[in-house]
Amino acid sequence: MREIEKLFDRIVQRVNINLRELEYDVNPYVQDLIPFNQMVKFYGFYGISPHHPLNFKFRHSNLAGSYFLGRCRVSNSLLYKSDIRGDELKKKGDLFQFNDYEIPVVDNEEIHVEDSFLIKTLVHNFSHDPESLERFFIKDTISMNYANIHGAPCDGCFLGVFATVDLTTMRDCVIGNFSYVQAGEISHLNIPPGTVWVRNPGEFNFYYQFPEPRLNDYVYFGAGLPPQGKIIDFVEDRKEAFQRVFDVVNIEQTIPVPSSASLDRYSVTRGLTTIGDNVLVAQRAYLQNAWLGKGANVQENCFIINSRLEGNDVTAHGAKIIEADLGVMVFVGFNSFVRGRPENRLTIGENSIVMPHTIIDITEQLTIPPNHLVWGLIENEEDLETNSIAIEELSKVDTRLAMGNMFFEGNGAAFVEAFQHRILHILEANGAFFNGAEKKGHAQKNQYISFNTIQPYPEGAKKGIFPTIVIQP
Amino acid sequence: MREIEKLFDRIVQRVNINLRELEYDVNPYVQDLIPFNQMVKFYGFYGISPHHPLNFKFRHSNLAGSYFLGRCRVSNSLLYKSDIRGDELKKKGDLFQFNDYEIPVVDNEEIHVEDSFLIKTLVHNFSHDPESLERFFIKDTISMNYANIHGAPCDGCFLGVFATVDLTTMRDCVIGNFSYVQAGEISHLNIPPGTVWVRNPGEFNFYYQFPEPRLNDYVYFGAGLPPQGKIIDFVEDRKEAFQRVFDVVNIEQTIPVPSSASLDRYSVTRGLTTIGDNVLVAQRAYLQNAWLGKGANVQENCFIINSRLEGNDVTAHGAKIIEADLGVMVFVGFNSFVRGRPENRLTIGENSIVMPHTIIDITEQLTIPPNHLVWGLIENEEDLETNSIAIEELSKVDTRLAMGNMFFEGNGAAFVEAFQHRILHILEANGAFFNGAEKKGHAQKNQYISFNTIQPYPEGAKKGIFPTIVIQP
Repeated sequence: MREIEKLFDRIVQRVNINLRELEYDVNPYVQDLIPFNQMVKFYGFYGISPHHPLNFKFRHSNLAGSYFLGRCRVSNSLLYKSDIRGDELKKKGDLFQFNDYEIPVVDNEEIHVEDSFLIKTLVHNFSHDPESLERFFIKDTISMNYANIHGAPCDGCFLGVFATVDLTTMRDCVIGNFSYVQAGEISHLNIPPGTVWVRNPGEFNFYYQFPEPRLNDYVYFGAGLPPQGKIIDFVEDRKEAFQRVFDVVNIEQTIPVPSSASLDRYSVTRGLTTIGDNVLVAQRAYLQNAWLGKGANVQENCFIINSRLEGNDVTAHGAKIIEADLGVMVFVGFNSFVRGRPENRLTIGENSIVMPHTIIDITEQLTIPPNHLVWGLIENEEDLETNSIAIEELSKVDTRLAMGNMFFEGNGAAFVEAFQHRILHILEANGAFFNGAEKKGHAQKNQYISFNTIQPYPEGAKKGIFPTIVIQP
Repeated sequence: MREIEKLFDRIVQRVNINLRELEYDVNPYVQDLIPFNQMVKFYGFYGISPHHPLNFKFRHSNLAGSYFLGRCRVSNSLLYKSDIRGDELKKKGDLFQFNDYEIPVVDNEEIHVEDSFLIKTLVHNFSHDPESLERFFIKDTISMNYANIHGAPCDGCFLGVFATVDLTTMRDCVIGNFSYVQAGEISHLNIPPGTVWVRNPGEFNFYYQFPEPRLNDYVYFGAGLPPQGKIIDFVEDRKEAFQRVFDVVNIEQTIPVPSSASLDRYSVTRGLTTIGDNVLVAQRAYLQNAWLGKGANVQENCFIINSRLEGNDVTAHGAKIIEADLGVMVFVGFNSFVRGRPENRLTIGENSIVMPHTIIDITEQLTIPPNHLVWGLIENEEDLETNSIAIEELSKVDTRLAMGNMFFEGNGAAFVEAFQHRILHILEANGAFFNGAEKKGHAQKNQYISFNTIQPYPEGAKKGIFPTIVIQP
């Protein structure tokens, strides 16, 4: 048996051992999902720049089609078309604030991926675990297509298709397809598909459950079958468009990009697309007739099609915006699927928040008013009524609130404030507020990245395994 | 001042200090020769395969456009479009035969390039220095365009344009343009341009001196000017053809290649080119209407244009063959320029040896008979008479022989035998004698190489400097 197959078997076994209490067997989901010949076919790549930390250590792994930035270490793992962004990690000397604690960071934080299999997964941000400040670990974990592991150390976990864990440390958990979890610290939980759960213990708890049959239309992943559903189809249909950006070494820029903005060379641009000042477009983003106002960002695996973003809009990792007009400061959370129609466009008013993992898919015109929070599955006006609330109104809640499949308890103002604070932080990190001299963020820093490619052994017993690679300043 | 400029100044100073006794100042030759912006522009690349040793360590260097294979270490150096092939090095446990000594090799040999500036230089083979078995060093050395450093450790040296040092350890030497030196061990020598010198102390000594004005027509390099001459023009005229092979990630093969042969993806193929069994075509080789018979090889920086090589022909690093027909087992040495004309072709009979650094440039038809040795500058029949000898006749010489600008002393048979032995070794190493199962060489092993690209910091103080890169099995 070749080494890459042994590695695969070993990872599957380790995850299953971790999940034994949940009686969860990952085998039927991952067997034959990515044929081994696909893992030999694609090159991996890493970025070098004067504005990003640099420390890559890759050992005994397959990194096909994966992208690395910053400080990350990968060993005994299979990373298929994944993005490991170690560019927002904590630095030696930082002070980490956790409740009343101020904990000194004694070393530069690194992302450590060990004994794991990540498929088209995005790993980003710093670990928010006060117990492990210097090591953002992803260990004995399998994550499926378009999962996001965002500031979330994982040990012994399985993440389904389009699952997101955000600022949460988890051990021995299963996160269902299209579920979003931001919960601080969890262990030994099996989160069902389509759960959106945001909690800050002692402060608030937001919980939404997608109706299963309706969610299955959009995202479904059963044992022995590849992922299915409308969102999968949407992404697959546009896969070919990325072929060329990976096939050429130097790519010409086809549209004007202001000197304060950056359009990643691994993104795709089609039609009449306009990039404003301070705009960030990340790798694997897809723009088609997109109008991006000052300070808007379009993160990894995002699609903006026939849409206008007025400015300072956040399109978080994996979000899709189609046939829509967004006012300023609209936040569209992770993996949200937000689709109007050419003849029936969607409008989202300024300062509104589309919660992570929201599906808005309309066939009649729909307007989300300014300063609203929306969540769940919205296909028409009626859905909107039970799946949205004015931010001001939510701020007044101090006990509990139930609307449709959503249940909220705790302090509404704290929830709103946490979200708004985070949106400002995201805009800041991405360079939306750059004034020509100060407040540089990714939009300005990412202009100066050069990319190096890496490939595995092309033949022999180690076929598909990459050599040991160490890259340092 | 940027780091890359400091590095340049430091290398120039170190070489000048080494060459102080010769009163040689390299400054006027190398200043502004390669603008620093060129050094930021091109990626370097290295090969990974199951058939080659692997140990790369690159530190504080620029590696623009350079290629690496095998075991090599580069520090504090500028390597511009150079090839460092550490795939024919000695292995731990080998026994190195030197005269009556049998010296054990205690570690895998590595090429160490330190504090050096190599421009379009080829480094290959193992060091033949019995004093330094495990370290093939290139230190405090500058080499110019199309120099070859072949199994030849160098310390404190300057190699001119198209200069070759072969199986020779040198310290504090200047090797003039288009000079070839194979002399065992030399120090504190200033070899004038156009010298071809092959000696085995106590056995034989071959010495040829190109007539200076006639050589200058072909290769000239004066202080403050870029290299000039017909051979430089010839190469420059074909530079554009290589653009595409470096611009795309995966290149399609346009002509059939037998399963026992290899055509490097960084070579250029034009017109009706035929590749026979066991043929090796290396990176940066250029083929145009080339017919390559079984076991022929075309090494780095070689050009084969409108020519036929019957089989088992060696085209050594940098040799060019144009409008010529070569019988079987013809050897064309390093950097030779062998040009017939469309209406007046050149014929070279079987088993003939074209000495390294030979220029054959005819305007009337010319035939070099089989089993002959030719050298120097040959533009017509008359030149051929004073620049060739039947190998059988040379074998009979046991005192001395003078013909034109050539002087030979010693044992002719030993000289011929050394050459023939080496040609067989080259064919063997390149896989010419592969029988489908045994006697694999580069032609068979090079089919399974994947290439990784590396780039320098694109901006900032370290602009042009590559990060520290370590690649191991």
